Amino acid sequence: MSDEAFADADLTQDAFLGGRVRLWQPRRGYRSGVDPVLLAASVAAVPGQRVLDLGCGAGAAMLCLGARVPGLDLTGVELQPAYARLARRNAADAECPARVVTADVAALPPDLRQETFDHVIANPPYFEPARRQGAADPGRETGLAGPTPLADWVATAARRTAHGGSVTFIQRVERLPELLAAFDARLGGIEFLPLAPRVGRPARLILLRGRKGGRAAFRALAPLILHAGDRHESDAEDYAPAVAAILRDGAPLRFSP
Amino acid sequence: MSDEAFADADLTQDAFLGGRVRLWQPRRGYRSGVDPVLLAASVAAVPGQRVLDLGCGAGAAMLCLGARVPGLDLTGVELQPAYARLARRNAADAECPARVVTADVAALPPDLRQETFDHVIANPPYFEPARRQGAADPGRETGLAGPTPLADWVATAARRTAHGGSVTFIQRVERLPELLAAFDARLGGIEFLPLAPRVGRPARLILLRGRKGGRAAFRALAPLILHAGDRHESDAEDYAPAVAAILRDGAPLRFSP
Repeated sequence: MSDEAFADADLTQDAFLGGRVRLWQPRRGYRSGVDPVLLAASVAAVPGQRVLDLGCGAGAAMLCLGARVPGLDLTGVELQPAYARLARRNAADAECPARVVTADVAALPPDLRQETFDHVIANPPYFEPARRQGAADPGRETGLAGPTPLADWVATAARRTAHGGSVTFIQRVERLPELLAAFDARLGGIEFLPLAPRVGRPARLILLRGRKGGRAAFRALAPLILHAGDRHESDAEDYAPAVAAILRDGAPLRFSP
Repeated sequence: MSDEAFADADLTQDAFLGGRVRLWQPRRGYRSGVDPVLLAASVAAVPGQRVLDLGCGAGAAMLCLGARVPGLDLTGVELQPAYARLARRNAADAECPARVVTADVAALPPDLRQETFDHVIANPPYFEPARRQGAADPGRETGLAGPTPLADWVATAARRTAHGGSVTFIQRVERLPELLAAFDARLGGIEFLPLAPRVGRPARLILLRGRKGGRAAFRALAPLILHAGDRHESDAEDYAPAVAAILRDGAPLRFSP
């Protein structure tokens, strides 16, 4: 876990959404890739709605969503104080009025426990602490394999969602059984969107969305194919056109085309 | 539930696997479609192995599997005596030495509870009794919405599977949360294969496979696309070539191409 603020020399500034969002991230700590960008693109938020980003890290998902949909009321929760500070700095640089609360997702402060949101999003740690050799950097390790069980992330998300609101998680496909059980216990209208690297390949990541009080049946959508072509042909990026539009142009990612 | 034997006048003889399998089925009762054929095609059985078909009905899955893989030791369990009799007659007509036990999947007879199998398959009722208006025909209703909870089907399947053996279910996609939770509690190496009607459409059916004692991570495979083209163009069948080969020529359905 990273408590101390990062020195500027330990940071890089990285471009998301084709440069519409620029984030300070630790050079050697936990760094966001495309996953939070895909998560943010999948949220059907409209101006004026309230959005909660659980485990916001340096703010990638929250700030990408804020760049796509103006006029959102954004709140991020981040366990690691150094990353929460980065998220505040990134929000200020982006002139995006987001609130960042330093807290454990499993133990939100009392005032936040009084609030509800139209959309709750999370890109929780992908690994279980017991099952891996830790990364050398403690902040990166907490981002990759935080101590809070996935079911607790879902429980917090569901509790903070207004009736009819959405909960959306991005996670490694290996943890679908655990994540789906947690969603199924607390949410309805669950939709599963696999993210597959290429046509015909197994999914590596998944988006899972549920609705508070939803009654629709579970749906398994056609996979979103991330890369064009049958194989990696060169070092150049080869995102499928619909995915490139999401990552570079800020297009929405629709669960149901 | 159907106790009384069917009169011959109430039966039709229907062709499966391009006529390699012919089954007597009740004209107005529960009738098998392509689902048990797809289930049977997905089982990676080799000659000499023991296979258990839970809820075998008139024997479609079991007898299609027996036609594709010679030399299997096949056992079917069927709750409804009239359907169990049909399955015995269909097995005899096919000269396929299958044993059919009339029993509730949730309460197998003591001798069967001493046995284990290399592969257990099931095409359980797709609906929950409490949630639907029943079909007029009681035998058909039991096939569509039998009284045994899905978790009990999985528990029986897992208990009767030898270490390293496979359990494969076909089911409506709406029940994946319930089915996956039951698999995850008792099996490992779970693989999810969605069956989608067309490219880009949500899955309607799923195949779910697990291994007794399996340790591999959960996988979500690319969907099997059942129909060619973007829409239903005519009354003629328009199965995708790989699916036509499964349904008409008895080709195997591979989970991992």
